[in-house]
Amino acid sequence: MGRKSFGMPLGYHGLMQLTGHSFLAGRRSLTVTDPFQAIAPATNTPLAPHFYSATLDELNQAVEAAEAAFPTYAKTSGATRAKLLRAIAAGLEAVSAELVERAHLETALPMARLQGEVGRTANQLRLFAEVVEEGSWVNARIDTALPERKPLPRPDLRSMLFPLGPVVVFGASNFPLAFSVAGGDTASALAAGNPVIVKAHAAHPGTSELVGGIVTEAVAACGLPAGVFSLLFDAGLEIGTALVQHPAVQAVAFTGSHKAGRSLMNLAAARPKPIPCFTEMSSTNPVFVLAGVLAEKPEVLATALHGSFTLGAGQFCTKPGMVFVPEGPGASEFGTKLRELARSSAAFTMLTPGIAGAYRSELTRRATLPAVTATQAAATDACAAAAILFETSSEDLAADPTLAEEHFGPSLLVVSCATRTAALESARRLEGHLTATILGTEEDLAAHAELLAILEQKVGRLIFNGYPTGVEVSHAMVHGGPYPSTSDRRFTSVGTQAIFRFVGPRCYQNFPGGMLPAELQDSNPLGILRMMDGVVGRA
Amino acid sequence: MGRKSFGMPLGYHGLMQLTGHSFLAGRRSLTVTDPFQAIAPATNTPLAPHFYSATLDELNQAVEAAEAAFPTYAKTSGATRAKLLRAIAAGLEAVSAELVERAHLETALPMARLQGEVGRTANQLRLFAEVVEEGSWVNARIDTALPERKPLPRPDLRSMLFPLGPVVVFGASNFPLAFSVAGGDTASALAAGNPVIVKAHAAHPGTSELVGGIVTEAVAACGLPAGVFSLLFDAGLEIGTALVQHPAVQAVAFTGSHKAGRSLMNLAAARPKPIPCFTEMSSTNPVFVLAGVLAEKPEVLATALHGSFTLGAGQFCTKPGMVFVPEGPGASEFGTKLRELARSSAAFTMLTPGIAGAYRSELTRRATLPAVTATQAAATDACAAAAILFETSSEDLAADPTLAEEHFGPSLLVVSCATRTAALESARRLEGHLTATILGTEEDLAAHAELLAILEQKVGRLIFNGYPTGVEVSHAMVHGGPYPSTSDRRFTSVGTQAIFRFVGPRCYQNFPGGMLPAELQDSNPLGILRMMDGVVGRA
Repeated sequence: MGRKSFGMPLGYHGLMQLTGHSFLAGRRSLTVTDPFQAIAPATNTPLAPHFYSATLDELNQAVEAAEAAFPTYAKTSGATRAKLLRAIAAGLEAVSAELVERAHLETALPMARLQGEVGRTANQLRLFAEVVEEGSWVNARIDTALPERKPLPRPDLRSMLFPLGPVVVFGASNFPLAFSVAGGDTASALAAGNPVIVKAHAAHPGTSELVGGIVTEAVAACGLPAGVFSLLFDAGLEIGTALVQHPAVQAVAFTGSHKAGRSLMNLAAARPKPIPCFTEMSSTNPVFVLAGVLAEKPEVLATALHGSFTLGAGQFCTKPGMVFVPEGPGASEFGTKLRELARSSAAFTMLTPGIAGAYRSELTRRATLPAVTATQAAATDACAAAAILFETSSEDLAADPTLAEEHFGPSLLVVSCATRTAALESARRLEGHLTATILGTEEDLAAHAELLAILEQKVGRLIFNGYPTGVEVSHAMVHGGPYPSTSDRRFTSVGTQAIFRFVGPRCYQNFPGGMLPAELQDSNPLGILRMMDGVVGRA
Repeated sequence: MGRKSFGMPLGYHGLMQLTGHSFLAGRRSLTVTDPFQAIAPATNTPLAPHFYSATLDELNQAVEAAEAAFPTYAKTSGATRAKLLRAIAAGLEAVSAELVERAHLETALPMARLQGEVGRTANQLRLFAEVVEEGSWVNARIDTALPERKPLPRPDLRSMLFPLGPVVVFGASNFPLAFSVAGGDTASALAAGNPVIVKAHAAHPGTSELVGGIVTEAVAACGLPAGVFSLLFDAGLEIGTALVQHPAVQAVAFTGSHKAGRSLMNLAAARPKPIPCFTEMSSTNPVFVLAGVLAEKPEVLATALHGSFTLGAGQFCTKPGMVFVPEGPGASEFGTKLRELARSSAAFTMLTPGIAGAYRSELTRRATLPAVTATQAAATDACAAAAILFETSSEDLAADPTLAEEHFGPSLLVVSCATRTAALESARRLEGHLTATILGTEEDLAAHAELLAILEQKVGRLIFNGYPTGVEVSHAMVHGGPYPSTSDRRFTSVGTQAIFRFVGPRCYQNFPGGMLPAELQDSNPLGILRMMDGVVGRA
């Protein structure tokens, strides 16, 4: 197919008209392959237009363009990258209405939630813009020369973080904006100075195309090489697989299922030259209710927990999927209230027929287990899902650990713990999760230091008297955790520290000042915080 | 075997008497397995005493003790860990004479070099002590609550870096002290708050036992749980393999060959729960001589380069193994001088018969290639190695990339580049290396921005007018680089940033101050640098 499939240049006119074609470094593919369509979950019907999976030839064009753009883009200033990120943010806001409308059709997520997600995505881009504009994030370190040192002189050493190269980002089904084409992975990879190739999620290709157009326009408007961004469609697995295996790709970011995430990890590790592959995969986000607060306000807790596990139809990475409740005062009221709320929940429309099907099939499996009691709301058609409550004991959970696995959708497992020891043992048996939540009075918490110590080793974020849904995009946020919640607990995919996934240090020894990046020059022209001979300052 | 193999408690009396037994969390193994011995490379004869490979049962005891020690050790203050690191440093210095004597027997490295390595190892421990005592390295971040924010309030979020858990460290053949039992990997893992299980290198078990005794005593003297440190012997691969596969092990650090390193990477990635595995593997450390300086002082360059590639018998990770020389003024004198120096080099004794054998066999293979001219010094017996110079052209190197692979020992490949384009193409074809060196005048360097840009993507450290051997242990040092030089170019194994391999972030949301680590408490009791709402300071 070759270069011929580089077609039509873009323009704002063409931007909002969906074509179904991938963006290849600033141009649209014109290749027509087997078409696929998005399915509107609300009606279970296909949505226009047809989308066309990228070809392997197009994939190579996109990656080669990214590779060619990298040396230029890697050397852009923080100010330039900030301009790009802000241009994308402004572009999203400018077409917010169209974005929300299309995303609503493709995902059945409520308009208000999607409007919020546009804001979150734009703010996320602007937060990374601030970080790279300020510039200190590069961790610049200077060890000055000690020519008189004995037995050997010390050379002048200067290091900082640099981008890795083309990064592949996989769109996520449950955040069509904030975790997809211009979401946190793309924002952090671009902020760091890496070109990005996005594999669009096949469940919201129209939303992806709209955002892809905005990013493409922003790259052009900022005068950056077009290879800084490409967006590839694929109904299947071929493009994603080939992207992770492409020799010029230097890192991967993914949010999705454990099965898909592990498969990408394995591909990345099996390459002739392995690359970093950050996958955020599965988490049941255990909640521990402590005795004091349970006795005080069982129904308040139940209501808040119901709100959290059914939020967004339970389709959040941080949905609390499992709650450990001590027997004793309040337990009965807590259970009764939860059952009542579960039973009376409105039906939810899930993101895709596949997700709804998987939800129902696991629901059916669990509901028939002898050790489990199920309380379910009614639900009817293809993408509809009923809220469900499963109840079991800590002993039965220990006997069937599959109950502790992520069940994506509006379900909650309530685990009754007969003793404090039973709760501690349940905590010890936990796999890695993104979050753990403790609901209790301050006295409760102080009396449960052992529980806290166990949970600290299991998760990336600990919440006291809150709920894990609602992941703040900020400097201190950690959206990460031990396997299987992520592939590498040393990183986070939300918050400004997400940038560290896509950079590595490089050191210059005895280089003349003029050949050094601005961040490492004697005069500190950018005025960033640096470590000079071990002391941090702006000198 | 069970607990019975936990035997004899230690004491300084027993410390310096080699027993050949592993250290299992503060006690010596008493298990007698098939014995092995160190070989003195200088005489190719076995050294007393016999050493005994640890059993899998003992391995489990060591790892379980590490796991049990972790919660306590992870919560120790920076001051406590600094005390431990300094106690180890003092212990090394106290028995410096015995250490140097034994290491000299086991490695044939010169006494002066080993004396220097004791100092380097002690200084390295003390540098990490300073870092953790000062405390700001944990990257504490606080985003204060914004209860009035619309549409949703922001919770209080506080994050910092925490240790991962038991770390497995592999001793390295070429640094019996600085990269082995109490070397940089152990120092950084302990500094971060992780228990360490060292797999001793079988080529210097006596040195390892001496250092293992010092660390064991220091752990006890500091009142820390004995599981903080174990040292396991093994003549084969079984213990190393089982350590990397043990479910309680949370990270791995290795320095050695590409084959062994990749094999450990694969093991770590194939675990049911993959773990970080930092391997530093192979690097040829290319040197580019530029035309200006070559014309100016060809013989000076040749002499310095000869000094660097033969230093320590060429057994450094950073040995410059490949030099690219432009045709033109000075090239002939440079070549003549190098040949003369190579031919007249004294014979070297290599670390082990195996390393010497591998060196000679690759030497023989290369010397018979038609595209290669070899100039060799004389060498005689088992562990002796002759310096050798291979000469070829950039075209012939392109045709046989095996010549660019690491050849561990005192050899150098001189690559003649007919044109500047040929040199740039050679640079583009480079694999990942730890370092690249440019020798030139400042005018040369300024005129070679393209070469610099290529090399920046190939290595972790760039050196101008210096030599890559001599790796400073400091804040700015980067001893890392793209695969195959290391498993993950986002990290370094030398310098204070090596600590970041063994930690990950954890976030506390809405926690009462009393339940937070000191680093995250409002009053900043440790006075560390923190990021508060995006602004770094000590407030």
